[in-house]
Amino acid sequence: MPAPFAFEVLAEDPHSRLRAGILHTPHGPIPTPAFMPVGTLATVKSLTPGDVWNTGARCVLANTYHLALRPGPETVRCLGGLHGMMRWDGAILTDSGGFQVFSLGHQRTVDDDGVTFQSHLDGHALRFTPESVVQLEEALGADLIMPLDECVPATATRAEAEAALERTQRWWERSRRARRREDQALFHLVQGGLFVDLRRAAGRFAATTGAPGFAIGGFSIGEERHVAAPVLAATLAELPRDRPRYLMGVGTPVEVVAYARLGVDLFDCVLPTRLARNGAVWADRHTEGRLNLRKRATLELQGPLLEGCPCQTCEGWPAGAVAAFFQAGDPLGYRLASIHNLTVLAERLERLRSGLLASRLKAGIAGSQPLEASAAC
Amino acid sequence: MPAPFAFEVLAEDPHSRLRAGILHTPHGPIPTPAFMPVGTLATVKSLTPGDVWNTGARCVLANTYHLALRPGPETVRCLGGLHGMMRWDGAILTDSGGFQVFSLGHQRTVDDDGVTFQSHLDGHALRFTPESVVQLEEALGADLIMPLDECVPATATRAEAEAALERTQRWWERSRRARRREDQALFHLVQGGLFVDLRRAAGRFAATTGAPGFAIGGFSIGEERHVAAPVLAATLAELPRDRPRYLMGVGTPVEVVAYARLGVDLFDCVLPTRLARNGAVWADRHTEGRLNLRKRATLELQGPLLEGCPCQTCEGWPAGAVAAFFQAGDPLGYRLASIHNLTVLAERLERLRSGLLASRLKAGIAGSQPLEASAAC
Repeated sequence: MPAPFAFEVLAEDPHSRLRAGILHTPHGPIPTPAFMPVGTLATVKSLTPGDVWNTGARCVLANTYHLALRPGPETVRCLGGLHGMMRWDGAILTDSGGFQVFSLGHQRTVDDDGVTFQSHLDGHALRFTPESVVQLEEALGADLIMPLDECVPATATRAEAEAALERTQRWWERSRRARRREDQALFHLVQGGLFVDLRRAAGRFAATTGAPGFAIGGFSIGEERHVAAPVLAATLAELPRDRPRYLMGVGTPVEVVAYARLGVDLFDCVLPTRLARNGAVWADRHTEGRLNLRKRATLELQGPLLEGCPCQTCEGWPAGAVAAFFQAGDPLGYRLASIHNLTVLAERLERLRSGLLASRLKAGIAGSQPLEASAAC
Repeated sequence: MPAPFAFEVLAEDPHSRLRAGILHTPHGPIPTPAFMPVGTLATVKSLTPGDVWNTGARCVLANTYHLALRPGPETVRCLGGLHGMMRWDGAILTDSGGFQVFSLGHQRTVDDDGVTFQSHLDGHALRFTPESVVQLEEALGADLIMPLDECVPATATRAEAEAALERTQRWWERSRRARRREDQALFHLVQGGLFVDLRRAAGRFAATTGAPGFAIGGFSIGEERHVAAPVLAATLAELPRDRPRYLMGVGTPVEVVAYARLGVDLFDCVLPTRLARNGAVWADRHTEGRLNLRKRATLELQGPLLEGCPCQTCEGWPAGAVAAFFQAGDPLGYRLASIHNLTVLAERLERLRSGLLASRLKAGIAGSQPLEASAAC
């Protein structure tokens, strides 16, 4: 892993594949497993960096595709890059735009060289290649950057998934060669659809790349969890233990816990903030049970959204007040609900992490030595 | 003035009628002259109490009419009153709803007993009387409360303005008798249209009421500033110097300075936050010059919205980033613009105040002794 990046595995659970680690970046350490809030357009909507930090997040995600369209990479660069524009001092990860382009459906055409698509804003034609995406990400200036990939739908045939996987692997090589900046870690991106053998092969290929970390794409695209879990486990089993694994687009309270136990270190998802925008907040410490703040009855709730939750919202306001702000259409309702949902995810993962570290201390086990990544990218 | 309220005049400007004072309330002191941000539905839209406090505000305004409709006074009371619901530890002022009802135009009927109108939310018929408004305000629990008044438009004839003034004065007596809580200060409310003689008479009547403070209504309803200023000055000249004067609904940077120099102590207005919602921010230290964050060119601004502005927005973000958030439709843009505009008003008044206090010290003048209000309400 290129300096100033390093990944330490502090402890591994003997009963699962859960790991507690620290991913060091030029913008500080990220204790793992960790959830990364999504700041599509260089903000986690309605939140300041201070709000985000207080949820426990140490890395946020921004979308290359969206920022390329608006305000544009040159504007972001002039405003000091993503860190300067967002005034976020922690780590930032940019995705490659591959998933957004995939989501455009019939409005895009993939060929071996890249992908042509129409802007969702004004319909004008755009083209991404592995090289142009790396250039965009270098202008944006995140710490962790992802290469262009081809994502297939959950309904893809094996042949389609295999072709997309091979293309993604060829694009990885081109992405790697296109890099100019040394202060960003370019992850390898693993595809393979929902086919266990393709995922195993993709994982084995990934292990040969010397990448500083691994992004796992192609999940949370409509498949059932009981389908996803074994395919994900097969992928993870092939990836080197000494580098971080990032599962893209997954983020319910139950999923992050289940998949951290399979060995995932990093998660991102728009779900916690999208739910918040609709007034849905996670209101149970163990399940995914939600409270709907649009319902009139919630105005009567004098306790917090979730008893014992350490977030700014639960420590500050009765649930009825948050519901009143929400029902009045005030952005403060959305903001307080976002803070809560993000904290719920961060806290579930933090409990896993601190539980593992505590049990390791208690057992008097020396644990794994910190594993320094051996490969440079 | 009833304990625990007190108003101290710390200094008066020998060259104008500007005063520097402190209005003590059960929820802390309000240094005056002061601008009070408007939190219509128990929030200054998109802002937490911490955000509001950091703009320099020590008192916020909430709307009785709007809160009576949604979420309703009983819900607010159950959530701990306005202070509990908002989690704002400073002072709160509620208006009477008179101005909102006046704004409904043809949908309301005024008679001697009260006013009947239709809810702007669902059209159902509602009635306010002086007594019912006091009951509502006691349920809401603000520190400073206003009596029901009849406001006339800028086009009202003298006879119409006089009739409304007399009705407002009769309603004041009924409001006063309807009170049950001792921990709220019920201001007297002065009307009189744009007629100097009526305003003088209204001011003289006000001086006889023993009220702990005076709200001045009927301005900022479409009249020109050169029309408003002498009428306002005539009103102020009749009001006792030892109690606070609150000019309702006025709040541009130029107006608050001009009218503080006429002797106004408190202001409120939706303008700074309404402008912010539309992307307009005050960007000059002396005029009312604005920057329009919806314009694409503002993306290029690398400095703050206003050089030297001490607000969280100007200290944190380049103007181009705030514009980018705004143009992306993120509520954070609205929030940062609101913080800025509120700080501009607070800072203009604070500069007046500290300038007066400093010049008094420099001149070695003992200044006015603190004037304790003599009358109980």
